[in-house]
Amino acid sequence: PEWQLLNRDGIMQLERCFKFRNFKQALAFTNRVGEIAEDVGHHPALLTEWGKVTVTWWSHEMKGLHKNDFIMAARTDEVAK
Amino acid sequence: PEWQLLNRDGIMQLERCFKFRNFKQALAFTNRVGEIAEDVGHHPALLTEWGKVTVTWWSHEMKGLHKNDFIMAARTDEVAK
Repeated sequence: PEWQLLNRDGIMQLERCFKFRNFKQALAFTNRVGEIAEDVGHHPALLTEWGKVTVTWWSHEMKGLHKNDFIMAARTDEVAK
Repeated sequence: PEWQLLNRDGIMQLERCFKFRNFKQALAFTNRVGEIAEDVGHHPALLTEWGKVTVTWWSHEMKGLHKNDFIMAARTDEVAK
């Protein structure tokens, strides 16, 4: 599954679920995405579960999607490779 | 806010939101809870966002709450101290 464009309570968001073999690998991915988020000062919601991480990007201040969210979604894909 | 007992799509869950000063501290907490989860082989859903982590415990195999979920909720509180 690729990135989905969602309208959640009126706020547009980009969301993708990444699958892993176990909890540990999922959490390692969460940390890698957390690193690129800290680098740019723009932070996603990261739902870490056994074998998967759901990453959601949106721009809180504008309650929607900014160019940066698409850039960060692409960078998240790079991290997942 | 303490632990809430939720019925999500027919599955009973224990959920609590923990607040932090920033994303980094939230992610550090996620990792600490991940560690205690790995220790016992029972894993929550951990939603990491800027300044907060929402922790949800339930027993997947029984689609509800087992004694272990309450034990892990208490251990999560210890980790947050």
